[in-house]
Amino acid sequence: MHPLLKEKVMSAQEAAELIVDGDVIGASGFTLSGYPKAVAPLIAQKARRLHAAGEPFTISLYTGASTGDEMDGELTRANALAHRIPYQSHPDLRAAINAGAVEFSDLHLSHVAQYVRSGFLKKPTVALVDAVDVTPEGHIFLSTSGGSTASYLLMADRIIVELNGYLGENFKGFHDVFIPKPPPMRERIPIYKVDDRIGMPYVAVPMEKIVAIVQTNAPDGTRPLKEPADIDLTIAGHLVEFLKHERQHGRLPEGVPFQSGVGNVANAVLATLAREPDLDAVCLYTEVIQDSVFELIDYDKLIFASGTALTLSIPGQERLKREMDLFKSKVVLRQQEISNHPEIIRRLGIVAMNTALEFDIFGNVNSTHVMGSHMMNGIGGSADFTRNAYLPIFMSPSTAKGGAISALVPMVSHVDHSEHSTKVFVTEQGLADVRGMSPVNRARHIIDRCAHPDYKPLLNEYLEYGLKHAPSRHTPQVLSRAFEFHLRYEETGSMLPK
Amino acid sequence: MHPLLKEKVMSAQEAAELIVDGDVIGASGFTLSGYPKAVAPLIAQKARRLHAAGEPFTISLYTGASTGDEMDGELTRANALAHRIPYQSHPDLRAAINAGAVEFSDLHLSHVAQYVRSGFLKKPTVALVDAVDVTPEGHIFLSTSGGSTASYLLMADRIIVELNGYLGENFKGFHDVFIPKPPPMRERIPIYKVDDRIGMPYVAVPMEKIVAIVQTNAPDGTRPLKEPADIDLTIAGHLVEFLKHERQHGRLPEGVPFQSGVGNVANAVLATLAREPDLDAVCLYTEVIQDSVFELIDYDKLIFASGTALTLSIPGQERLKREMDLFKSKVVLRQQEISNHPEIIRRLGIVAMNTALEFDIFGNVNSTHVMGSHMMNGIGGSADFTRNAYLPIFMSPSTAKGGAISALVPMVSHVDHSEHSTKVFVTEQGLADVRGMSPVNRARHIIDRCAHPDYKPLLNEYLEYGLKHAPSRHTPQVLSRAFEFHLRYEETGSMLPK
Repeated sequence: MHPLLKEKVMSAQEAAELIVDGDVIGASGFTLSGYPKAVAPLIAQKARRLHAAGEPFTISLYTGASTGDEMDGELTRANALAHRIPYQSHPDLRAAINAGAVEFSDLHLSHVAQYVRSGFLKKPTVALVDAVDVTPEGHIFLSTSGGSTASYLLMADRIIVELNGYLGENFKGFHDVFIPKPPPMRERIPIYKVDDRIGMPYVAVPMEKIVAIVQTNAPDGTRPLKEPADIDLTIAGHLVEFLKHERQHGRLPEGVPFQSGVGNVANAVLATLAREPDLDAVCLYTEVIQDSVFELIDYDKLIFASGTALTLSIPGQERLKREMDLFKSKVVLRQQEISNHPEIIRRLGIVAMNTALEFDIFGNVNSTHVMGSHMMNGIGGSADFTRNAYLPIFMSPSTAKGGAISALVPMVSHVDHSEHSTKVFVTEQGLADVRGMSPVNRARHIIDRCAHPDYKPLLNEYLEYGLKHAPSRHTPQVLSRAFEFHLRYEETGSMLPK
Repeated sequence: MHPLLKEKVMSAQEAAELIVDGDVIGASGFTLSGYPKAVAPLIAQKARRLHAAGEPFTISLYTGASTGDEMDGELTRANALAHRIPYQSHPDLRAAINAGAVEFSDLHLSHVAQYVRSGFLKKPTVALVDAVDVTPEGHIFLSTSGGSTASYLLMADRIIVELNGYLGENFKGFHDVFIPKPPPMRERIPIYKVDDRIGMPYVAVPMEKIVAIVQTNAPDGTRPLKEPADIDLTIAGHLVEFLKHERQHGRLPEGVPFQSGVGNVANAVLATLAREPDLDAVCLYTEVIQDSVFELIDYDKLIFASGTALTLSIPGQERLKREMDLFKSKVVLRQQEISNHPEIIRRLGIVAMNTALEFDIFGNVNSTHVMGSHMMNGIGGSADFTRNAYLPIFMSPSTAKGGAISALVPMVSHVDHSEHSTKVFVTEQGLADVRGMSPVNRARHIIDRCAHPDYKPLLNEYLEYGLKHAPSRHTPQVLSRAFEFHLRYEETGSMLPK
């Protein structure tokens, strides 16, 4: 190791001591990939020690998206988090947010870096990043996620690098780091194909800002993926049939890239696409690249994948290490500002496939709040893609909790994607394509195609009631009854009447 | 007139006869500017005649946005409209939509042309356009609005041109017509400054598609503008103070363009900007250019204005005719797909200023539906701008109907802009800047700054109740009480308890 670097090497314990009360940490990490794993638990330990001594210690934490237990879990349990942006998925942190113990700002992921650079959010004081290499020139090579890390490194006064040996230096080259200038004299983002590279493979920082290098060796603590369930495969089947139909009718140009959300249904969709003989190989311009990318590669169905996070299971990470060069020829990782950028999403004409928590008969989608109140994870990039996509698609099983909850309701309890921005809905019951329809026709079509049979009569009754009693027959929503499914569930534990 | 053109000249009556039952008319026209005025009333007459004879006759009407009484009014009253997209503001049409007599699809304005070209909407069979000139080569020079007219002309089989002598041929040169290619191999939209021109001053069509030329001479039937009311000027004052504050703190770069919605508050904002000595001259990258543009010009505060519609009062249109060359050096008209394009809005870093119908304590905005059901006009471009803006701002008087309605409610009855996409709220009471805040802090700040004093205790009580009883303290929304303001209004005629 170069002497310039060597003198900054310290233990995770020593690095954690550099964090002080009130620090704003801008960290790497996106859907549990590429987050720093060593220093955060020791910041939590420091918080506990200080709290026990009656001293205050809390920090703000900005990341790409969700991180693992070492960070979101440990810091939450130590009561060390005052403010968290822009997305999370850890059960302990989620509980703390919903208890009102942690302030959480749930942001469109494409906005975060610009808001930080523009001073719309408190300036990060410290950047804490997982990296595969750092050079004496101050070139930091990020690990499995891009996130908003480059902007945090740019803005922070102090940088702590976790130099992670797990992936090896051969991982260098996956990233394409590009930071747009401030407005108004901004250039275009010159991505015209998903594999265009427009930046550098590293983030360049002034060496003097690097205050600590902590040597680590650990894979990402991703959760094991389940085999796709039958219901997920049924949803995927409807969707793939629809895509074939659109292709046949000339409404789905060859080569438009796909974006696919995170989770089981999304994974099943890509697995189904991989095995579908009647569809060509695909490009992904997406946020998170999951294990399903292996399936696409194995079936020779992946042209190229662009994302901001490579979120692989442990076996997936092992395979990545074995086949690093093959992967590097097929995958690029960008900053989330670019992976989710409206300019590129609109230009490339992306088919956006995301999961709804619930959706309503008029086409509004809830992605974030259970019962309009309880935060799940955050909006993530779903609106970055949905709002600017060529064709936005939302998927969900028609019911949850053994049928006690209908994903399709009279009125969603929180709106993340309005009726104006949604076009296609898929459940295991079927697919509703509501392009160009008025709200009432949308409602009839969505109920007919997507509702679970147990809920169909209730939804139809609500619609017919509205057509008689609502203030208008355009969107016959009846405010006194709009949440009756939700209120029944809160009261009886089921949206179905006894 | 060239013989090639002369042979297509006919009366409005004859042209109207070319329209048949089931036609899909793609018309020019945007916020009552540049819409065809002569043929539509005679289509209405034809509809009445056929209906009286027991024959069916309805059409679909696509436009840029709202049109005047000659089109939306006449066709509605003749029961000639089956389907209308994407925006309207005529009282008779609004009533018909809310009665369920006309199917209305309320679309993001930036999406319309692409949806038409991609086959997502029924193909326009006829294009009906107001123009200042047409040449024997098939070059059509549009009048005061861009709208989606170029794409309608491209897609339609038959074209009817209303050759309007009112503005004179000297109006030629205002438009910059550019149609993006289909995805995925799309180029950038090469606009880097608001005055960049990237297309042609006309729309080129095959001459054989022009089936009729109707000679007319009529100004746009715009509504007279009111002098700004005190309350509008108070709102504008808060907003301008905020912009100056942001400029001082380095968060509002010089030269970022402004977008300003339609209506009295928006007009007052631009008038106030014009008279503000501490702010530099401005660029507008907006949808509708209203009379306030004169004020900006007269105070030497307009660098350049780009829009899709030049919606001027009759005296404004007369002044435009007198000062055509000055205007032409200061204004460009684009297709709405480009005036509202996410790529440009994000690139230029636009400050978006739009009017809310109602907004809620957590920051969600309703722009379209009264009491969650009754359609006002449509979402227009408000989400095109808000979603991709550098800094999105929503304005509204804090109450309506003499205080019987609070614009600030516990939960909006319809969401067009989610809490994730909104940042700044202004009423005559004050301004709330909620960037980076959690929902509860947003609620406290919005209530404190924006609520009318009569409603402040009610809103605070709701928030405190939610913090005790809602499922979560993250967004303490209580579904059983969320619409109590609205329901009280429906029951008693006031959102205030007796």
